[in-house]
Amino acid sequence: MRLSVVVPVIGDQFNGHVYEEVRAYAGRESEVEVVNLDHGTASIESAYDEVLVGPDIVRKVEAAARDGADAVFVACFGDPAVNAARELVDIPVVGGFEPAVLAAMGVADRFSIVTVLPSVLTMIHRLSASLGISSRIASVRVIDTPVLELADRAALEQKLLMEMRAAIAQDDAHALVLGCTGMLGVARSLQAALADEGSFVPVIDPTAAAILALEAQVRMGIRHSRRTYLPPPVKARNV
Amino acid sequence: MRLSVVVPVIGDQFNGHVYEEVRAYAGRESEVEVVNLDHGTASIESAYDEVLVGPDIVRKVEAAARDGADAVFVACFGDPAVNAARELVDIPVVGGFEPAVLAAMGVADRFSIVTVLPSVLTMIHRLSASLGISSRIASVRVIDTPVLELADRAALEQKLLMEMRAAIAQDDAHALVLGCTGMLGVARSLQAALADEGSFVPVIDPTAAAILALEAQVRMGIRHSRRTYLPPPVKARNV
Amino acid sequence: MRLSVVVPVIGDQFNGHVYEEVRAYAGRESEVEVVNLDHGTASIESAYDEVLVGPDIVRKVEAAARDGADAVFVACFGDPAVNAARELVDIPVVGGFEPAVLAAMGVADRFSIVTVLPSVLTMIHRLSASLGISSRIASVRVIDTPVLELADRAALEQKLLMEMRAAIAQDDAHALVLGCTGMLGVARSLQAALADEGSFVPVIDPTAAAILALEAQVRMGIRHSRRTYLPPPVKARNV
Amino acid sequence: MRLSVVVPVIGDQFNGHVYEEVRAYAGRESEVEVVNLDHGTASIESAYDEVLVGPDIVRKVEAAARDGADAVFVACFGDPAVNAARELVDIPVVGGFEPAVLAAMGVADRFSIVTVLPSVLTMIHRLSASLGISSRIASVRVIDTPVLELADRAALEQKLLMEMRAAIAQDDAHALVLGCTGMLGVARSLQAALADEGSFVPVIDPTAAAILALEAQVRMGIRHSRRTYLPPPVKARNV
Amino acid sequence: MRLSVVVPVIGDQFNGHVYEEVRAYAGRESEVEVVNLDHGTASIESAYDEVLVGPDIVRKVEAAARDGADAVFVACFGDPAVNAARELVDIPVVGGFEPAVLAAMGVADRFSIVTVLPSVLTMIHRLSASLGISSRIASVRVIDTPVLELADRAALEQKLLMEMRAAIAQDDAHALVLGCTGMLGVARSLQAALADEGSFVPVIDPTAAAILALEAQVRMGIRHSRRTYLPPPVKARNV
Amino acid sequence: MRLSVVVPVIGDQFNGHVYEEVRAYAGRESEVEVVNLDHGTASIESAYDEVLVGPDIVRKVEAAARDGADAVFVACFGDPAVNAARELVDIPVVGGFEPAVLAAMGVADRFSIVTVLPSVLTMIHRLSASLGISSRIASVRVIDTPVLELADRAALEQKLLMEMRAAIAQDDAHALVLGCTGMLGVARSLQAALADEGSFVPVIDPTAAAILALEAQVRMGIRHSRRTYLPPPVKARNV
Repeated sequence: MRLSVVVPVIGDQFNGHVYEEVRAYAGRESEVEVVNLDHGTASIESAYDEVLVGPDIVRKVEAAARDGADAVFVACFGDPAVNAARELVDIPVVGGFEPAVLAAMGVADRFSIVTVLPSVLTMIHRLSASLGISSRIASVRVIDTPVLELADRAALEQKLLMEMRAAIAQDDAHALVLGCTGMLGVARSLQAALADEGSFVPVIDPTAAAILALEAQVRMGIRHSRRTYLPPPVKARNV
Repeated sequence: MRLSVVVPVIGDQFNGHVYEEVRAYAGRESEVEVVNLDHGTASIESAYDEVLVGPDIVRKVEAAARDGADAVFVACFGDPAVNAARELVDIPVVGGFEPAVLAAMGVADRFSIVTVLPSVLTMIHRLSASLGISSRIASVRVIDTPVLELADRAALEQKLLMEMRAAIAQDDAHALVLGCTGMLGVARSLQAALADEGSFVPVIDPTAAAILALEAQVRMGIRHSRRTYLPPPVKARNV
Repeated sequence: MRLSVVVPVIGDQFNGHVYEEVRAYAGRESEVEVVNLDHGTASIESAYDEVLVGPDIVRKVEAAARDGADAVFVACFGDPAVNAARELVDIPVVGGFEPAVLAAMGVADRFSIVTVLPSVLTMIHRLSASLGISSRIASVRVIDTPVLELADRAALEQKLLMEMRAAIAQDDAHALVLGCTGMLGVARSLQAALADEGSFVPVIDPTAAAILALEAQVRMGIRHSRRTYLPPPVKARNV
Repeated sequence: MRLSVVVPVIGDQFNGHVYEEVRAYAGRESEVEVVNLDHGTASIESAYDEVLVGPDIVRKVEAAARDGADAVFVACFGDPAVNAARELVDIPVVGGFEPAVLAAMGVADRFSIVTVLPSVLTMIHRLSASLGISSRIASVRVIDTPVLELADRAALEQKLLMEMRAAIAQDDAHALVLGCTGMLGVARSLQAALADEGSFVPVIDPTAAAILALEAQVRMGIRHSRRTYLPPPVKARNV
Repeated sequence: MRLSVVVPVIGDQFNGHVYEEVRAYAGRESEVEVVNLDHGTASIESAYDEVLVGPDIVRKVEAAARDGADAVFVACFGDPAVNAARELVDIPVVGGFEPAVLAAMGVADRFSIVTVLPSVLTMIHRLSASLGISSRIASVRVIDTPVLELADRAALEQKLLMEMRAAIAQDDAHALVLGCTGMLGVARSLQAALADEGSFVPVIDPTAAAILALEAQVRMGIRHSRRTYLPPPVKARNV
Repeated sequence: MRLSVVVPVIGDQFNGHVYEEVRAYAGRESEVEVVNLDHGTASIESAYDEVLVGPDIVRKVEAAARDGADAVFVACFGDPAVNAARELVDIPVVGGFEPAVLAAMGVADRFSIVTVLPSVLTMIHRLSASLGISSRIASVRVIDTPVLELADRAALEQKLLMEMRAAIAQDDAHALVLGCTGMLGVARSLQAALADEGSFVPVIDPTAAAILALEAQVRMGIRHSRRTYLPPPVKARNV
């Protein structure tokens, strides 16, 4: 299986870490390729950023499909341009939000999302509402740290742990979703730390959830419905 | 009051008609200016189109704000890039969907939307869900006609009337929303035709609703909340 | 445009202030007339009060329509007898709740209502539920002050500000709705005060929202649907 | 137990039949008294009617409480002035809607309401929404017959049976609620007729449900919460 | 009327107290019989317990119906095997949850449930969701005491009172439901204690609610719909 | 990975086909073992059947966990005893419903379930409601065929195809879920047949979805939350 990962930002500094994370969860026989954008923003933390990265994301997804990819992961928790990409190609495409949330729903009645900055909260709440699953969300919390400052893993884990404990104690979260695909390599240790403090509370890595959702779709022989995602009508387009 | 209208497509063929429609509903003392996009698509009928028109829409809204506009109407029923634009400027910005739906909610318990093509249905259903108002929607129907073929007003009215009658009889619609800002100049005559056939059923023109929402916000001294629409964090952006 | 305002209480002590507030938001060319009730209560703060003021409200709305009004504002946040009035006349009629809430929905994902007394909370929560928009309401708070003691504007602003800050900080409100049409002349200064303390958070004056909703309906040529508000069947009525 | 029944219309022509229906379901040891209104309408089929009957209903409920009634039934499916009455007295008060709907929820996952005229549909849909139980309602259907023409029992049963069959076959109703307290003495025979045609489908008589709800509250020693129904503040009232 | 009560645990130590509680609320002319299980668990505090008691519950309900009972109360708040029992018999069958919740909905807009242990919370939240009434629930709280330690009535009342005060003050509960049928004989004194501390807040005893719901169904001549609860198809069963 | 499959019926006639279906979707390196029940029913088509199979299901899941299984699939669409089993073991456990529905949500905005008999509809509607995902379900349809008569694959496909076409045309289904784990080996051909007739509409095999969900949980290192599924308190149990 050929999995294509579009890291939807300019600059390739995340590519290595994303590759490792994807590799860690992909099936042994899967090939993984990681590309980033030529045009866009350094990170995605607002609706404005989502608008700016959109056109190049769909270009990269189309290219991946044309080049024989079996499935594409748009590595951002906001699922930017995923709907558009699904209209264009006939292979599975997911972002970070939908698979992570569905995975969380499979293991807990209520879950919290812990994300980066207040500026992405509207995005997350609207995605939840548009999927009709808001009743399952205990809370959405932020560590108040920009994507570009997530690299310090110890600091990241510390901040996440603090919000996760609060989500459990104050918001009655039963599971936790990492609300940014840049929160790499921390899910398992956070899950272990929380388990040490009391009950087992699953922590969902959106990259892991996305890769396993793509492999599941490919192995089940399914992909997005063409009645939800219709092909775009033909017309003049000049971008 | 200076109202700026962004017709979010390439080509200025709609500008004249949109200007007339806006003019017909804007306050006498309001100035109206209409611009279209440099880069984008000839019409917006898919999530793909929405992605492609996004970057130039935010540019045009920013320009309008910089040039002293008091409010901006992004003349498309899908509210493309409206959230992003609101993050960037401190003047009221609306698309066609939100004001039309809120106007309909003010006059009827249930309403139907009649739009162009099946390819926009997912967009409309998700917008409704993300605004939490799906329980008020009786149905969304299509006349199966592309935006670029709406110019024949007699044919347009005929198709709309047929779907509107069906929405009333089969879906129990109490009001009707024109689901495309390209359906210009037909709301009042359709409303009259339906009234002749039975009860008074309001027909909402999204352009009218948008202009009156903008004027209302300006006159009330309000605009979008900065707690829903936070300013985008500063970072490298290359588009 | 002739706007008729029914201040639905006995005693004309509010009429002057209501006139000023309406005048401040009505279009320059609109005429405004204000009447109050002959039979009813001194203020409306319970379902009991709503029942008592109902019959004279519908009489006053009918009279306004007969006398050539273009639209009627029933100046109370509980929308008392508004549904009944709409059954009777063919001109736009609104109370304070519906237009304020729809205006708030147009500028923020979540909003709080700050009202007078605990005795009106059930009314407000049921109105929200009956309109299907409860998911958009962050909280309903009270300043614990009867309508007849709202006249001290400084004290009023102080109490409102305190609850509004709490709504923002504790309930995550993104916008605020004044939950009583007797809270006159304070929306703009409260909005300014809140903006000084942090982000811009719109404050909705229900009188302003109502007047602009009425003018919008008149200018759009729409009014309440006769499929939601059917004419009452003819029969013996003795009141 | 003393049960007071307020038939909330002018004219006493219903009193006898209502007394019989109440008597048929009330406990053997219960005393039943039936009163009607001095001021109001001949029947209740619109929000306008509800407004007109409101003041005298609260007067009659207050009088019943003062005279030692243990519980009061306001015999109308629209629950007119019930909330107001609950604010005023400390004995159980119900209308026809709430008890019937709760009884139906106890025996079926989905139910339909069959009522008199289209002019009461908005009332019923809003009551359902305001109680948060719309998801349990399969449909609301009308027999298109005014309250004052329900006396012909054979015709009434015929019309009801036709709509009930349609509710079962087309709307997947699992139970049926008679949507008018004037549909007296027909529930059991309709239930038997439907059972003969297929599965057992319960038919709820709102009068029966109301009386049994009142007796249950009295025997359980509960009544309406004073945190939902607060006492009205003291003030000038002139009606 | 013959009321059969199935105390769905092994051991008859609860039978006496349950008999007294049922007797206290049943109509004078009703006969009451109480049986317990031969196979099952000592108490029901988990989904596991519910699975283990299920088969003998349906046996006991079938036996009661065969022996001429008019209605059956399965005396557990989790409604264990109630749906299955309804499929099998043509007499009213209720558990503790559904009737208590419907009774609470009839007297308050929002209510809290106070139950025994955290291990039953998922059961209660899912029952609420499956009945579509979650919007009416203010909170579900626990006294953290196993069923088998509820016998000390003074301690029980003290713990319940503490959680009920918190439900009112912190969760805005308007009514309270005892979330275990083993909380016997305390509802009225708790209700009195709360009333002494402020407003009247009804406290629902699930046993009382169940018995009154059964008597109401019998007296109304209704029972569960056979369109919700179909008879099980015939087949090999070996248990 | 060791996958244990509990076919929760008496008689081993399904074991072979279930093994094949599981094998077809399990990862190459996974071991698969299939067991059936000693005590229970020949098929599961009612709440009554679910009650009867419950105790032996939990025994079999416990045994599998004790014997070193990494994950357990309870091969029935009603998820019988799955919640109880999750309380008892610390390895992933799923039935057929939850994984299939979550898989469908990942590929389509609306989906229909096509199942065996009307007697399972209540079960399915309540599961949907209890998971909070009813808004995504277009319809639940039946082929009116008992589980034990599904063996004729040609007839099965014909009946399924007919209902699936109806679900698409009449209920606006965008994806389809096979509503019985006994509908083996038909998903792919039905999906192909539907695609030939128009748009690509994914068809979800619940066995495939379950196996891929289990493998995903194991590979992600997650399992059910112990805050949703608490361990059952220790006590006397005699079954």
